[in-house]
Amino acid sequence: MKIAIVGAGAVGAYHGIKLAQSGNDVHFLLRSDYEIVKERGFELHDCGEVSRVRVHAHKTPQEIGRCDLVVVALKTTANSQFTVLLPPLVGAGTQILTLQNGLGNVEALGALFGSENVLGGLCYVTINRTAPGVICNLGKTLLWIAEGEGAPRERTRVLAEIFRAAGFRTEVQSSLAETLWKKLCWNVPFNGLAIAGGNIDCAQLMASPELVKLSQILMEELQAGARACGIEIPDSHLAKQFDVTRRIGAYLPSSLLDFRAGKPVEVEAIWGEPLRRGTVRGVAMPHLETLYLLLKKLCACRV
Amino acid sequence: MKIAIVGAGAVGAYHGIKLAQSGNDVHFLLRSDYEIVKERGFELHDCGEVSRVRVHAHKTPQEIGRCDLVVVALKTTANSQFTVLLPPLVGAGTQILTLQNGLGNVEALGALFGSENVLGGLCYVTINRTAPGVICNLGKTLLWIAEGEGAPRERTRVLAEIFRAAGFRTEVQSSLAETLWKKLCWNVPFNGLAIAGGNIDCAQLMASPELVKLSQILMEELQAGARACGIEIPDSHLAKQFDVTRRIGAYLPSSLLDFRAGKPVEVEAIWGEPLRRGTVRGVAMPHLETLYLLLKKLCACRV
Repeated sequence: MKIAIVGAGAVGAYHGIKLAQSGNDVHFLLRSDYEIVKERGFELHDCGEVSRVRVHAHKTPQEIGRCDLVVVALKTTANSQFTVLLPPLVGAGTQILTLQNGLGNVEALGALFGSENVLGGLCYVTINRTAPGVICNLGKTLLWIAEGEGAPRERTRVLAEIFRAAGFRTEVQSSLAETLWKKLCWNVPFNGLAIAGGNIDCAQLMASPELVKLSQILMEELQAGARACGIEIPDSHLAKQFDVTRRIGAYLPSSLLDFRAGKPVEVEAIWGEPLRRGTVRGVAMPHLETLYLLLKKLCACRV
Repeated sequence: MKIAIVGAGAVGAYHGIKLAQSGNDVHFLLRSDYEIVKERGFELHDCGEVSRVRVHAHKTPQEIGRCDLVVVALKTTANSQFTVLLPPLVGAGTQILTLQNGLGNVEALGALFGSENVLGGLCYVTINRTAPGVICNLGKTLLWIAEGEGAPRERTRVLAEIFRAAGFRTEVQSSLAETLWKKLCWNVPFNGLAIAGGNIDCAQLMASPELVKLSQILMEELQAGARACGIEIPDSHLAKQFDVTRRIGAYLPSSLLDFRAGKPVEVEAIWGEPLRRGTVRGVAMPHLETLYLLLKKLCACRV
C-alpha cells in the first residue's frame, strides 16, 4: 500500500515508521526535519530499543504523488496548509486518515476531498520527538479508527488490519464524533487549565480544588454540547477522566508543552470548535467560552 | 476629632496625613512601617511637593484607645484581623469608615460593631507607597462617602465635611452598595483579566478582542447580579468603563501589582463576593465563576 505521512511530528513519524517496517510503501512529507531524515533516517527509540530507520523523505507532495492512503498528522493550527499539501497526494480511491486532535478536521478534509474519502483516528500514545529526526515511544499505543461520517465499513476494518499488522493495538469505533467528544472531556479541562491555571502540570492541577471544580463543570458543558449533537457521554466517563489524571501525576499535557515552547496551541480544534457546535445548538457553554477566550489571548502570536 | 487609621498603606496613610494636617487628632496603627514612621514621620510627595510629616505612630490599638472615627484601609485579605485590631478603638458613638475594595467589608464590620456604626467610602486616587514610610500622590483625589446601610444622614454629611476640610473632593452618595457594584464593573474585568489574561497591562488587555469581549460579558453578569440585589447599573456605565480604560493606556491595575509582587490579591472581595451575591439570588454568573476559580488558583499561597 502506498502511504503518505503528512506532518511528521512524533505521532506521524512513529506511525509511518511502523507502517513502513511492516511492508508498506511509506513516504514522509517533511519540513524542518527533511535534511536530517533524508541523510540519516529517523533515530527510533521504541520502548528502550534504539534503531536507525531509513525512509523515503520528501520535501514536496509532488515528489510523492498519488497514494492509496494519506495519513494527516499535522497540527490543526496548520490546517490551512491542506489545500497546498494534499491535492498532489489524492486521487480517485485515495483514503485520507486524520489522526489530529479535536473537532473540525474531518469536516475540513471532507469539504476538500469528499467526506466519503475521509476517516479519523485517535491515538492514545506517549510518543515524543525529542530532537530533529529523533522519535521516542515510551509505552503502549492504542489506535481507534472510525469513518469520518457514519458507521464502520469493510474498508474501515481493512485499514485497522493494516495498522494492526504494523504492531498497533487497533480498534474500530462505531462513531468518530463520539470518540472525539469523549477525548475532549480530557483535553478541554486538563490541557486548558494547565495553561490558564498558571502553567502547571497535572499533579498541580489536581491539587487545586478550584481547578478540579472547574474541570468538572467544563466536562458537564461538553456532555451537554455532545448531547445536542446526538452523542451521549455517560457520567462515568467524566469520573474516569479524573481517575486517569490522578494516576499520571506530574504529566505535562501536549498543549502545555506547545505553550511553554512558544509553539502554536490547537485552540480552535480543542476549545473553539466544541464551543461553536454546542452554542449553535442553543447549549450554554459559558465556562468553556471563558476558557477559550483566555486561551486564545494567552496563546496568541505563536508561530 | 480623634481618628485612628488602621492599615496605613498608600490610601490609609495619605488620608490620615491630610486629616491630621487639617487639625484632627490622627493616630496611625502601623505594622511594617512602624519604626521608620515613628522615628522620621512620613515622607509625603503630594503632586510634586515633598514634605516630611510627623505623626502619632502606634504599634498596637491599645496604645491608641477609643476614637471618634476609625478609618479602615486594610487590604480585605486581612479582614480576619478586625477582631484583634478594632475593638480597642471602638466605643459607644465611634464611627467606622471602611475605604476598602469590593463587597463584604461593611457587612463584616457591621456584624462585629453594629451596622448602624459603619460607613463606607470609595477612593478614586493615584496614590502609591513607593518605599517604607514614603507616600506619593500623583493626582487628583475623589472620595465618595455613604452610609453602610440606607440613605445618607446628618452624620454622613458631617463626615464628608471633615474630609473636604482636609482637601478631598468629597461627595455623599445615596447608596453604598450601588457605588461598590459600579466600581466592580471596572475592577472585576480589568483587575482580573490583567492577571488571568497573562500578566498584562490595560493597554495590552484592550488590544485583545477576546479580553474586551470577556470584559463586556463580565460586566453584564455584574449588571444582572446587581439588579438581583435591587441596584440598576445602566448600560452607559459599562460603556464608560471601556472609555476610561482606553484612556489610561498601559496602567497596571492594583491587583496586578499585588500579583506581580507576590502579595495577597483581594480575590474574595472583588470576585468571590459579587459571585456569591448573584448566584444566591439565582443569577447565572458563569464567566465570573470561571475567572474567580482561576484567580483563586493563580493567586493562591501568597502572604
